[in-house]
Amino acid sequence: MVKNSLGRLVPEVFAGKTYTPYKDPWSLQPHCKRGTRDIKRIDHNAKKLVGNLRDGIIASGLKDGMTISTHHALRNGDHLLNQLVKEIDALGIRDIKIASSSVHAIHSEIIPYIRKGVITGLECGVNGMIGELISKGELDCPVVVRSHGGRARSLITGEVLVDVAFLAAPYCDEYGNFNGFYGPSACGSLGYAIPDSIHARKVVAVTDNLVPYPAVPVGIPQSVVDFVVTVKSLGDPKKIVSTSTRITTDPIGLQTAKYAAMVIEASGLMKDGFSFQTGTGGISLAVADHVRNMMRKGKIKGSFGCGGITGYFVDMLQEGLFRALFDVQCFDLKAVESIGRNQNHQEMSASMYASPFNAGAVVNRLDCVILSATEVDVDFNVNVNTESTGYLLHNTGGHSDCAAGAKLSIIVAPAIRGRLPIIRDRVTTVTTPGETIGVIVTERGIAVNDKFPELKEELIKRRAPVKDIRQLRDEIYAITGAPRPLEFEDKVVGLVEYRDGSIIDAIRQVKK
Amino acid sequence: MVKNSLGRLVPEVFAGKTYTPYKDPWSLQPHCKRGTRDIKRIDHNAKKLVGNLRDGIIASGLKDGMTISTHHALRNGDHLLNQLVKEIDALGIRDIKIASSSVHAIHSEIIPYIRKGVITGLECGVNGMIGELISKGELDCPVVVRSHGGRARSLITGEVLVDVAFLAAPYCDEYGNFNGFYGPSACGSLGYAIPDSIHARKVVAVTDNLVPYPAVPVGIPQSVVDFVVTVKSLGDPKKIVSTSTRITTDPIGLQTAKYAAMVIEASGLMKDGFSFQTGTGGISLAVADHVRNMMRKGKIKGSFGCGGITGYFVDMLQEGLFRALFDVQCFDLKAVESIGRNQNHQEMSASMYASPFNAGAVVNRLDCVILSATEVDVDFNVNVNTESTGYLLHNTGGHSDCAAGAKLSIIVAPAIRGRLPIIRDRVTTVTTPGETIGVIVTERGIAVNDKFPELKEELIKRRAPVKDIRQLRDEIYAITGAPRPLEFEDKVVGLVEYRDGSIIDAIRQVKK
Repeated sequence: MVKNSLGRLVPEVFAGKTYTPYKDPWSLQPHCKRGTRDIKRIDHNAKKLVGNLRDGIIASGLKDGMTISTHHALRNGDHLLNQLVKEIDALGIRDIKIASSSVHAIHSEIIPYIRKGVITGLECGVNGMIGELISKGELDCPVVVRSHGGRARSLITGEVLVDVAFLAAPYCDEYGNFNGFYGPSACGSLGYAIPDSIHARKVVAVTDNLVPYPAVPVGIPQSVVDFVVTVKSLGDPKKIVSTSTRITTDPIGLQTAKYAAMVIEASGLMKDGFSFQTGTGGISLAVADHVRNMMRKGKIKGSFGCGGITGYFVDMLQEGLFRALFDVQCFDLKAVESIGRNQNHQEMSASMYASPFNAGAVVNRLDCVILSATEVDVDFNVNVNTESTGYLLHNTGGHSDCAAGAKLSIIVAPAIRGRLPIIRDRVTTVTTPGETIGVIVTERGIAVNDKFPELKEELIKRRAPVKDIRQLRDEIYAITGAPRPLEFEDKVVGLVEYRDGSIIDAIRQVKK
Repeated sequence: MVKNSLGRLVPEVFAGKTYTPYKDPWSLQPHCKRGTRDIKRIDHNAKKLVGNLRDGIIASGLKDGMTISTHHALRNGDHLLNQLVKEIDALGIRDIKIASSSVHAIHSEIIPYIRKGVITGLECGVNGMIGELISKGELDCPVVVRSHGGRARSLITGEVLVDVAFLAAPYCDEYGNFNGFYGPSACGSLGYAIPDSIHARKVVAVTDNLVPYPAVPVGIPQSVVDFVVTVKSLGDPKKIVSTSTRITTDPIGLQTAKYAAMVIEASGLMKDGFSFQTGTGGISLAVADHVRNMMRKGKIKGSFGCGGITGYFVDMLQEGLFRALFDVQCFDLKAVESIGRNQNHQEMSASMYASPFNAGAVVNRLDCVILSATEVDVDFNVNVNTESTGYLLHNTGGHSDCAAGAKLSIIVAPAIRGRLPIIRDRVTTVTTPGETIGVIVTERGIAVNDKFPELKEELIKRRAPVKDIRQLRDEIYAITGAPRPLEFEDKVVGLVEYRDGSIIDAIRQVKK
């Protein structure tokens, strides 16, 4: 165990692998070559369509101890990972690691297979029950949480070796060309699957919608796909794009959004060429609505919106407020419909989106990003992975990537959530270092990082409720009381990797 | 020197590198990993726009002995390679190898720089004067000719290491996203540049049309582009897409095309799902015209057209005769206009098009390809590289790739060209092995490879002028006389690599 630069005690070895402690967001340099894989040659008459999922597993050569991946564009509607794990079990294969781009609540079905030893590790973040059980020590399955950019990096550097990627392919031909734009399980962008298609040792396209050759436009090409298999259904379309996409009506949320809009206005970033990202969720969309109105009013011609894309951003594109959208994942059906039809709505890989180790990611070009938090500390460090119960319940997403890349990262959150203070002395887990966070906005006030003295001054001039972050914490504590420190066992059950691969925090088993 | 399986005497070592003699089109298996390059990290605030071409060369770190590349989508209108070589010379850099996707007549301007030792090798085929001078022994510059698929393979395997790729970028932003669809030097598909963008150690985008960020749709992404430089002009738009695109009016050509159409009809391939490639040139287009009429008449719904794409194929796409076009290179302005606007007109990389060493190239899916020849021998071996003068005058293009991939490869050529017989005992140079050629069509008759007995029978049934290839040769010789054997020096000045990297023939200095 060593203390990293944020004072977090992190292991140097975890589940048999060696890790570097986090130092800062910028200085870690890669000293490696891009990951490689065997060059293959196929018979020019070879068929790739091998049957059902089980046939695909067999054809791929999956064996005990290997690592598999899936992408999470189908999110909580995904049926593939559960089917896959069941088939792997049926084939008697054991000790498999999952290195998917994310695991969702629906994948709780794999819990029995973790207990049974079919799945023995998660090289990816988890949302929901699996993380909770791991945190409680009720499920023995080491987990390494990565940001979207960090995951792409880990595949590209070869730190995570995926033996077989099983990629949900909503519109796919028998020779392996596919996209996510059409079909009963259309999910839009396949941005998270692209690194797997390039770096996994074997690639199996799994489809419920086999179309005549060629499936165009080609998202992932035949030249990287080894096998094609068919399943009855990849997922539940109603849940594939199921994120809340309505602007909040809650007065606290609306107040927070209004303050966030004041921050953007005061930042001076709102001018031609403005680029912007915001997630889903009611407050974020309320901020987007303010941004839209500011852009209209100021006749601002923005450059791009990026990240997971909602219909709200599609409207802004169509209205001419942005020239382009960079889409790593579609958050709703409107986004899915747009990406298949509008050339300015651009699919991008997770690497292009957010990897710190390439010739320049899209997040580097972001002016402003709106991010959420489960907790923030007085050094502006942000937690999105665990909740104040100590349970690992959320994946990092693009949080730390966007915070590092954007000129201004704004955290929006209610001051109090479930009777617990959002700002506290110490976050349970550090996901994103405070050094990369500009402003914390709550309905009770705005805390500006000292790195932005001019923005702070401008906000004060505009009579915004700027408060020192400690003052804001105290005001909130006055209502909620100081949070009781959680008690943890020494046992580390998971790591939170920073985007560059260093360990920013460890997740420990929660004391009963 | 060893004799390969076609009886061609080829060196095992050439210009310091080791090569394998050709054996057959199918059996050579890769035993290597995909080429790699250093993982880089850039400062998230870094600028990539570094100035002019010379600044770009300096920024790239180009040094004596290194290898550069350009793509040839601008073809005989390309101004970049000439400018580049002049700037390299001005910087005092020497001993540079060129590994471009092709070198054209316009690049004769680099001849003085070859003499001067600035350029000391060509890892690519050449069209025109440079090849002629090399063949005559008047220019000392070892050349290795590769097919389009073979070139992609050589970059991907790392057999050819490109130190710096200078990629003409007709529509480019300051962070390196670019496409070829728009701008004064629009060339359409950038299919040949894609392997370079992934495998060169440094990538410099060179543009005469810097557009606001982001340049969408993104063909080659910012995440692989190290620097962006501007030049006054990338090329002469009139010559960028300058191939002959009119159907022949020559009666010999029309007769040949008619016979080729008979072969396609007799082959049984003309049914729903039909896929087709033909090059430019009057006879090829005349065949395409027959194909179009057959498809209309038979209400055939084809799957795809591929290769270098002409307006003729664009019309067929728009007419619904093909569902998609796979485009590695646009041959005319109509194709350029279409690829930027029609999602079913798909840009593809040279690797996806034609590499023998991936999970399956598009050529593998071709039903029928129409190819040209400068010479054919009685074993159906085809020469497109040298002419009957012995001079290296033409690049391979996709010739041997398509021949190997397609179900049926048809060579169309006039029986006599410049008083010389097209069919002869022995071709001057083997580009494409006869084993991968189905039929030779001339205005004087059709020769069917013994590998297609049913097709031969069907053609005879249809009263097509089927002749044994030796008979056809004799008939032509009766008019032209047997060609006088060329005299060569022992000195090998170039190699013709087969698509799998084995050496199918050597090019020797022609005796004065």
